[in-house]
Amino acid sequence: MFTPKPIGFVRSPYTKTSEVPKGMGAKHDAEGTLEIAEEFELGLTDIEGFSHLFVIWAFDRSEGFELIGPTPMDHKEHGVFATRSPFRPNPIALTVVELVRRDKGTLHVRGVDMLDGTAILDIKPYLSSIPEEKLRRGWIAEAEAAKR
Amino acid sequence: MFTPKPIGFVRSPYTKTSEVPKGMGAKHDAEGTLEIAEEFELGLTDIEGFSHLFVIWAFDRSEGFELIGPTPMDHKEHGVFATRSPFRPNPIALTVVELVRRDKGTLHVRGVDMLDGTAILDIKPYLSSIPEEKLRRGWIAEAEAAKR
Repeated sequence: MFTPKPIGFVRSPYTKTSEVPKGMGAKHDAEGTLEIAEEFELGLTDIEGFSHLFVIWAFDRSEGFELIGPTPMDHKEHGVFATRSPFRPNPIALTVVELVRRDKGTLHVRGVDMLDGTAILDIKPYLSSIPEEKLRRGWIAEAEAAKR
Repeated sequence: MFTPKPIGFVRSPYTKTSEVPKGMGAKHDAEGTLEIAEEFELGLTDIEGFSHLFVIWAFDRSEGFELIGPTPMDHKEHGVFATRSPFRPNPIALTVVELVRRDKGTLHVRGVDMLDGTAILDIKPYLSSIPEEKLRRGWIAEAEAAKR
């Protein structure tokens, strides 16, 4: 196995997890930047053509993991692999952001849900979407329906 | 930083990278299984309600990285963060699969593009899609248009 290393860090308006919108109907439209280290900047070549990016980052302020636990969405217990809980066997997070603009090694993005200073592990282009009619969202759809 | 550990392994029809469909118009409909280790099986609770999953896995048979390089799609050079190249600063891969059925710790899925025996790092529910009209696919859309 490899040893993860940051390719850069997130600048975000959030400094505490309690500030990040969570649970039912949480909106993720906060703007922030992905500050990619100069040594990796060449790897951003042509990224400005993509509207959305996958950002893979480290839950670097969560400790340990819980295989099953309650969520802020419905307060019921669900398996960790059926949630976005930060307490995972590998503390790896995934966020889709909208790329607003690139300025050398700085990507201005919308939709950050990371804490300020979070280590970025990877960025990939977001390429395709599953058509709405083919998507089933399990317990999350149920939780949403129950709140209506 | 954390030390990645496999939560399970992929069973796939592919044993060599040359067998995995790549480049323009590559179809990813191969079926395979995600075999989650017994110690992590509880974490799969409620996963069967989701139609699609993100699988985060390790490029465990690629060595080193290239910040810029040619792709099988258009043979032009692009930055590694604008491609799905396996030669990344952190050898982390992301695949969206369709969940066909769960059998205890075994997830039967469609859309595998991993090699047989690949280490799985994480599984997350696929929750939402970017509407087609909001998606820009950069050099990939250009490469597709050029081939028409």
